[in-house]
Amino acid sequence: MSKDRLIYLPLGGAGEVGMNAYIFGYGPKGRERLILVDLGVTFSDMDGSPGVDLILPDTVWLEERRDRLEAIIITHAHEDHVGAVGQLWDRLRAPVYARDFTARIARLKMQDAGHDPQIVKTVGKVPEALDLGPFRVQFFPVAHSLPEASGLIIDTPAGRIVHTGDFKSDLTPGVGEPHDPAMLEAIGRTGVKAMICDSTNVMNTHEGRSEATLTAPITELMRNAKGMVVATTFASNVARLKTLAVAAQEAGRSVCLMGRAMLRMVQVATEAGILKDMPPTVSPEAAKDIPRENLLLIVTGSQGERRAASAQLARGNYMGMSMKEGDTFLFSSMTIPGNERDVGRIVNGLSQMGVDVLDNSQRLYHVSGHANRPDLEEMQRLIDPAVVIPMHGEHRMLREHAKLALANGRRALVVPNGSICDLTGDVPVLVDEVETGRIYLDGSRLVGAMDGVIRDRIRMAIGGHVFVTLILDEENEALGAPWAEIAGLKPEGRGGEALNEIIEAELEEFLARAGHKILADDDKLNDGMRRVVRQVVMEELGKKPEVTIVVSRLLGD
Amino acid sequence: MSKDRLIYLPLGGAGEVGMNAYIFGYGPKGRERLILVDLGVTFSDMDGSPGVDLILPDTVWLEERRDRLEAIIITHAHEDHVGAVGQLWDRLRAPVYARDFTARIARLKMQDAGHDPQIVKTVGKVPEALDLGPFRVQFFPVAHSLPEASGLIIDTPAGRIVHTGDFKSDLTPGVGEPHDPAMLEAIGRTGVKAMICDSTNVMNTHEGRSEATLTAPITELMRNAKGMVVATTFASNVARLKTLAVAAQEAGRSVCLMGRAMLRMVQVATEAGILKDMPPTVSPEAAKDIPRENLLLIVTGSQGERRAASAQLARGNYMGMSMKEGDTFLFSSMTIPGNERDVGRIVNGLSQMGVDVLDNSQRLYHVSGHANRPDLEEMQRLIDPAVVIPMHGEHRMLREHAKLALANGRRALVVPNGSICDLTGDVPVLVDEVETGRIYLDGSRLVGAMDGVIRDRIRMAIGGHVFVTLILDEENEALGAPWAEIAGLKPEGRGGEALNEIIEAELEEFLARAGHKILADDDKLNDGMRRVVRQVVMEELGKKPEVTIVVSRLLGD
Repeated sequence: MSKDRLIYLPLGGAGEVGMNAYIFGYGPKGRERLILVDLGVTFSDMDGSPGVDLILPDTVWLEERRDRLEAIIITHAHEDHVGAVGQLWDRLRAPVYARDFTARIARLKMQDAGHDPQIVKTVGKVPEALDLGPFRVQFFPVAHSLPEASGLIIDTPAGRIVHTGDFKSDLTPGVGEPHDPAMLEAIGRTGVKAMICDSTNVMNTHEGRSEATLTAPITELMRNAKGMVVATTFASNVARLKTLAVAAQEAGRSVCLMGRAMLRMVQVATEAGILKDMPPTVSPEAAKDIPRENLLLIVTGSQGERRAASAQLARGNYMGMSMKEGDTFLFSSMTIPGNERDVGRIVNGLSQMGVDVLDNSQRLYHVSGHANRPDLEEMQRLIDPAVVIPMHGEHRMLREHAKLALANGRRALVVPNGSICDLTGDVPVLVDEVETGRIYLDGSRLVGAMDGVIRDRIRMAIGGHVFVTLILDEENEALGAPWAEIAGLKPEGRGGEALNEIIEAELEEFLARAGHKILADDDKLNDGMRRVVRQVVMEELGKKPEVTIVVSRLLGD
Repeated sequence: MSKDRLIYLPLGGAGEVGMNAYIFGYGPKGRERLILVDLGVTFSDMDGSPGVDLILPDTVWLEERRDRLEAIIITHAHEDHVGAVGQLWDRLRAPVYARDFTARIARLKMQDAGHDPQIVKTVGKVPEALDLGPFRVQFFPVAHSLPEASGLIIDTPAGRIVHTGDFKSDLTPGVGEPHDPAMLEAIGRTGVKAMICDSTNVMNTHEGRSEATLTAPITELMRNAKGMVVATTFASNVARLKTLAVAAQEAGRSVCLMGRAMLRMVQVATEAGILKDMPPTVSPEAAKDIPRENLLLIVTGSQGERRAASAQLARGNYMGMSMKEGDTFLFSSMTIPGNERDVGRIVNGLSQMGVDVLDNSQRLYHVSGHANRPDLEEMQRLIDPAVVIPMHGEHRMLREHAKLALANGRRALVVPNGSICDLTGDVPVLVDEVETGRIYLDGSRLVGAMDGVIRDRIRMAIGGHVFVTLILDEENEALGAPWAEIAGLKPEGRGGEALNEIIEAELEEFLARAGHKILADDDKLNDGMRRVVRQVVMEELGKKPEVTIVVSRLLGD
């Protein structure tokens, strides 16, 4: 039917690095059958989401259309692609498909959330294909930093789409399938309508380097280090865990993995039979009996997370292990923008202990899992799509990536989160915008980013909190004086008196002046008291606090 | 007298970039006469000090000895060297000395804080000298990014100290005196016991570049830009303001300065007669009538500060000016580690408007005001001190700087904040540690970092706040039910009921079970109720909130 259309709608990932969630649809307008590619999380920070455990994409648009959702497809096992599957599956209730290793990780997520892990189905790579309504989907291997990372060939009646997933152009990635230009070129020769492409590293103008280039420098470091070596990287960077472990083995060091997420990744990869050359590891208990110069600890916390092993070692000890002068700490990682201060705190803590800290500033100890600008250009040549749609990146990265495609003579369009792009014709067009956003996992519960809960926390963090209680009797007469308590504010006013007493005195004056009309009206009374409190705190401290007023009205029995 | 000693004690700056405050002392132990070099601030962040306006060094050690304080000496007019003079002067009450431009800025700080600006005395550069008890102090010019930046020659009976202040090796710094190797070498030839040296850029292995190298690329940018150009840099980087303004003039653009701090700096520099070649600027009102392609706005907010001009432009408009497709935004600055996320927010906001954003990633549009590693080595050669004591840097930078000095055959010692270093003999020795730390300017008042005020705010930000009121009569009977209010927490429990009602019900049960002993004892009652609240919130939300309990006991008339 000529009215059928092919649409693309990112719910997350097209406005941030992380939280990937991309919808493809095909069918008559408003009745398209849908597939969701990836369902990941991103991480919170004190500035925008204090106390929040994880940030998930708001899938409300999809929930309202879940009868049309054919499948959830996961490209690989990183948290920003699979992390929200457990938390959000209940809202979407579609089958989940992934390759073996990814499926194993997804099943653990389902299990953690109390869902049946068997909802996750294993799919093999090309030529195996999934028929999902109007879509035929095949997983093709790409090089990344963990096993079985995949791009997708998505065939539709309107043409072939290639969704790259996260990838890099690494011919020797250590773990997982290598970059395969011949295979990619073969896909390209079949005629690709549009390529939805990873944008994370588009700002990096260097050619990407291979994981294999790290082996020599890391082995040399492990050989030359006098004391214990502690290395940190992302728990899910399975390739790096292996590179580090192999280097340690070469240098005569036993390897001890510390951190639950890391152990889980290695265990699943081992069970899946895709980590065969990984050297054996020792337990933290056994590590204590091994001479320091014969030991490598691989620990979590490369981003400076305060409760992770790295931060605990920098503060003193972790699981009975501690660092000292002559030891070496290696950040085999890059710092995600915004985490510099947390990472710096670790480096300074270790520096005070006399530990030598090495990082990737000399480009010896880390390579990225994402394609740099020249590699993105190579991907464009190989897949040869008519249209490039950048995904997985902040807006500036998407824009830069689209510019790059345009400069290379292709069509390109930035499609930000919540925008529906019609891919049916030759020219991609933005046709609609839908409600989208973020959901917070806060403790054990989900909270909408716009619900005001976190906004109130930020306000209390900035301005402190004043809490006022007033008891009125049936005649609206105050029973006793108003009671004020403060939290997160200097307890003394300018003259040294207690701030809450100054507030109470001003409130008493206000109540004495207030007429019956105000005292009988909860809203007016609250507003008036709030104004008094804010004025006192501004005068005494120069702060604008959050104010909560509770008026209890005693009723006769 | 042989028992006299020469000591050095950093109160701030030897553990962070910022908040500089260095004490030198000479005399019998415990009776040393003291001078303080610099009294600066550092900036707060949501992670560690939410809502705080400025961070100042804790000078309590010095306050208790202020009868021995001869002077406060300010090396230059940057906030991290002069910013705390107004706020802390009252606690120290010593004369303040600085060169003309610095003194003018310091006087404004004194005025803002309600002190007599005439307390700040102007001193000329070498050979003019200040005799301060056992010290003779001379200001020698160094290149930095603003006028009259200075190092200090501090002569003591135990020998000559050189305190570099902030400096770079720039022969053409645009504003302020150029780097003068011959003068520095002449100082070195007089015999220098110890050099206290800027460490900010010790990690940078490149040779420093001159401010003058920016003129050509910035002028070219301004010529080629189609629409309006907006540039941001630190308000206090007077040299850069001039470089930008001159480039704009060359490119036929009028210059409009926006931001109070920026206008103040330029005004003071102009009044001091040291900004003679600065092109004229236009007011924001006049700028509105100038064609976009003939306009450069220089704005504040290079670090992504939310209320500054840059952030406001990225959100829509600032003082009636707004940016659009075809305009160019230039970060003529570097991002201080930790501010990446705030800066990124601006870049993404501008990207969404179609504005081209340029930064220093190609090393064309910014140079640092601090000496890089090769320049620090040159300084060591020129001043030729027996001992190098690194200052102004995080611990890892101080450590790296000390290693560099050692590698070049000099003595070196890391002296962190709060450590007293005895410099009397040939070998510097850490002899004592004193109380030190941070003071927060929170609104209009000073709060100690360890007072718990900010800790409570952080706890509320992470865990939310539950507030409970209970009224008891003279017999310790509850008058009505306990009243719970929540702030910053999801308002519904797991089953959908109101969280505060669940808390209230559990508290009622607790009170019904509680014996008279508990009800009569405020502490026991508070503890018990707090435990109940925390348990409910953990069960329902998985959160650990801050809890405030207020028990009002009604007394008979």
